[in-house]
Amino acid sequence: MRLSRYFMPILKENPKEAEIVSHRLMLRAGMIRQQSQGIYSWLPLGKKVLDKVCGIVREEQNRAGAVELLMPTLQSAELWQESGRYDAYGKEMLRIKDRQDRPMLYGPTNEEMITDIFRSYVKSYKNLPLNLYHIQLKFRDEIRPRFGTMRSREFLMKDAYSFDLTKDAAVHAYNKMFVAYLRTFDRLGLRAIPMRADTGPIGGNHSHEFIILADTGESEVYSHKDFVNFDIPAVDTDFDDVAGLQAIFEKWTSVYAATSEMHDEAAFDAIPETDRLSARGIEVGHIFYFGTKYSEPMGAKVQGPDGKEHLVHMGSYGIGPTRLVPAIIEASHDENGIIWPASVAPFDAVIINMKPGDEACDRISDSLYASLGNAGKDVLYDDTDERAGTKFATADLIGVPVQIIVGPRSAASGEVEIKDRKTGARETMTAEAALNRILG
Amino acid sequence: MRLSRYFMPILKENPKEAEIVSHRLMLRAGMIRQQSQGIYSWLPLGKKVLDKVCGIVREEQNRAGAVELLMPTLQSAELWQESGRYDAYGKEMLRIKDRQDRPMLYGPTNEEMITDIFRSYVKSYKNLPLNLYHIQLKFRDEIRPRFGTMRSREFLMKDAYSFDLTKDAAVHAYNKMFVAYLRTFDRLGLRAIPMRADTGPIGGNHSHEFIILADTGESEVYSHKDFVNFDIPAVDTDFDDVAGLQAIFEKWTSVYAATSEMHDEAAFDAIPETDRLSARGIEVGHIFYFGTKYSEPMGAKVQGPDGKEHLVHMGSYGIGPTRLVPAIIEASHDENGIIWPASVAPFDAVIINMKPGDEACDRISDSLYASLGNAGKDVLYDDTDERAGTKFATADLIGVPVQIIVGPRSAASGEVEIKDRKTGARETMTAEAALNRILG
Repeated sequence: MRLSRYFMPILKENPKEAEIVSHRLMLRAGMIRQQSQGIYSWLPLGKKVLDKVCGIVREEQNRAGAVELLMPTLQSAELWQESGRYDAYGKEMLRIKDRQDRPMLYGPTNEEMITDIFRSYVKSYKNLPLNLYHIQLKFRDEIRPRFGTMRSREFLMKDAYSFDLTKDAAVHAYNKMFVAYLRTFDRLGLRAIPMRADTGPIGGNHSHEFIILADTGESEVYSHKDFVNFDIPAVDTDFDDVAGLQAIFEKWTSVYAATSEMHDEAAFDAIPETDRLSARGIEVGHIFYFGTKYSEPMGAKVQGPDGKEHLVHMGSYGIGPTRLVPAIIEASHDENGIIWPASVAPFDAVIINMKPGDEACDRISDSLYASLGNAGKDVLYDDTDERAGTKFATADLIGVPVQIIVGPRSAASGEVEIKDRKTGARETMTAEAALNRILG
Repeated sequence: MRLSRYFMPILKENPKEAEIVSHRLMLRAGMIRQQSQGIYSWLPLGKKVLDKVCGIVREEQNRAGAVELLMPTLQSAELWQESGRYDAYGKEMLRIKDRQDRPMLYGPTNEEMITDIFRSYVKSYKNLPLNLYHIQLKFRDEIRPRFGTMRSREFLMKDAYSFDLTKDAAVHAYNKMFVAYLRTFDRLGLRAIPMRADTGPIGGNHSHEFIILADTGESEVYSHKDFVNFDIPAVDTDFDDVAGLQAIFEKWTSVYAATSEMHDEAAFDAIPETDRLSARGIEVGHIFYFGTKYSEPMGAKVQGPDGKEHLVHMGSYGIGPTRLVPAIIEASHDENGIIWPASVAPFDAVIINMKPGDEACDRISDSLYASLGNAGKDVLYDDTDERAGTKFATADLIGVPVQIIVGPRSAASGEVEIKDRKTGARETMTAEAALNRILG
């Protein structure tokens, strides 16, 4: 993408309304724009990162056997009256009347609707296990939305819902998502700690939050330091291996970790002091097993091998991509801007043509841009008339992993400079060597 | 995807509520489910097709130089008061009050919001031309939603918005989208005819609808038959070639074509009778040039080369993916079900294991499934215990282009049957030959 044809409105000033670094950097880099309180547009640079995050979430859901569908944003109130949550949910639920005065709502979550889909079609245990998910907008009318897309009112959520014949099978479904989440956060460059958590309005009796540590986190968390050394389950993990997944779950829940709601001071104090971790964290995922909480009032039953009808055991599993983007920035930035992990970087590289109009600069920049594009790399090409200093600052701010700097002096001898955004290391080499380095 | 692990709820009965073939087939194939009047879930099979349609739309938008972002579904009423459309829009606009009693709405379209984004950042003609698009849910509270997702209340729309300094430049922007649309519909297997159209609530003075012919279409259309012979612009079309695009536009608008609102009987009667086409059609795209209709009330101005401020000239360009899916089915089906064009087929092929448990059937089916998957093909593997007749009917119904039928008799001699869904042609060959045939 040539920057001259792109839409990336960089802010030069620090926006006053931004209290945390991710919000500030997302505004400055032209990733998002607030349209109403807690409601954001994702500008092109932000949209690209959001898509990459969703892509990784989707791959890991699919790998764990979950099947994607897409439920609508608006739901009828009737479904929520069936489950009993319509009155219970409170003011965070955005209630709507359509032109025929029918009560509707903007879904804050989808347990009721997915249970309704399930009961409409699935009648036999032979169709289980089943895990259905979607990545869809939600709305929660927070009284105090803040921190940009970290806590917005309209937000994107991946929510998966599992259906099983028995509690044991449901526990395996839970473990699958537990492992999928560990892999997902790792691929996003995050170290997330699963913590016993309160189940809140979703309900149920078995729940973990996945928390990443950050000073700006809204949760207080307490854990053992061992988590940093635990291995992430491998890409070839067998999700049908019941004992294998249970072992991973047990390993990752074998040491103390809890949010403040579930904190057990005595247990925490039993940890040697040097191994205690007391910090602030950002919730980036939340998984629940809630048994028959929805299948019972809504009559979601299947015939078992015994010929009798059984209420299905359910769980739900949420990840918020629109929150993950700022969470990644909180975990990976420096004083000059964002440092994207390669897996979610909006571009693979940026070519900085320091002097458009200079024959050598243009020739080398154009050629690198074409070669990298042909090789399938997604490259931003800064071909604008801005001063070199501004271009460098922009490249650092938007955090693309590799910068290719094409200046008139080195270009004349066929050379360019490669800068690693993360380490700041710079190296001069021929344009061809740079190409090979990046295509690696 | 193994069908035993998928969620594809096939209906055996013809659903009574479906008046048109696409609606009937989408329900029967388990592609969609109505959740409330005019509000649908896209079940896994439908979601896959919808994603493919969106993918092609996106590729052609990007090729034409449009830049993707994502605006939210909910908008503040204020913006629409600025443009004057808040009161004008009528009951199709779903009006909402949030918990703080602020008037909001579920966006039926985004001219106001994108104009607001534009005016916030773009101040100079040097940043033009600009075309920003998103693929986002919209809501229009139709009094009579019908035909499944063909006319639903919550629907997905790709809407692009162009910004230019002058009317001439805006006409070029319009031509870019005109060409992108011809290419998009062609890649979706549709022959769409651009027709002069009424501009309706979007406003403006220059507009074309893209219509595909179908007996179930809601529009009456009148055109010259020559359209079927016109060439689709090539993949390497130069979108910066102003004269070239204008020539394509002129060619495609050189013969008579209009919807009933714009119909000119005298002009139509002047066409030789054998060349007249009077039919019903489905609107699958709509493009508008509307000059300064929004930039003027909302103050979207840029500084021109003359140093003065100029109102920007705008256009908007819509395609409805959730309508395109049924439109494709209307254009491509037979008495047994859907016939997907390969470009949007939910799977590349389906393997029908006629007798799971039979050693040869399992071995050959498993091996083909693995080989095709490793080669990057997305294959549905019917490994269920259904009767062979049911499996054949399902494969025809869901319309996957190629069926690989693995029966016990031919499997014993290492052979399978390949069936072309569209022609019905069947051919027996070795499993290896089948693999090579599909990998092409």
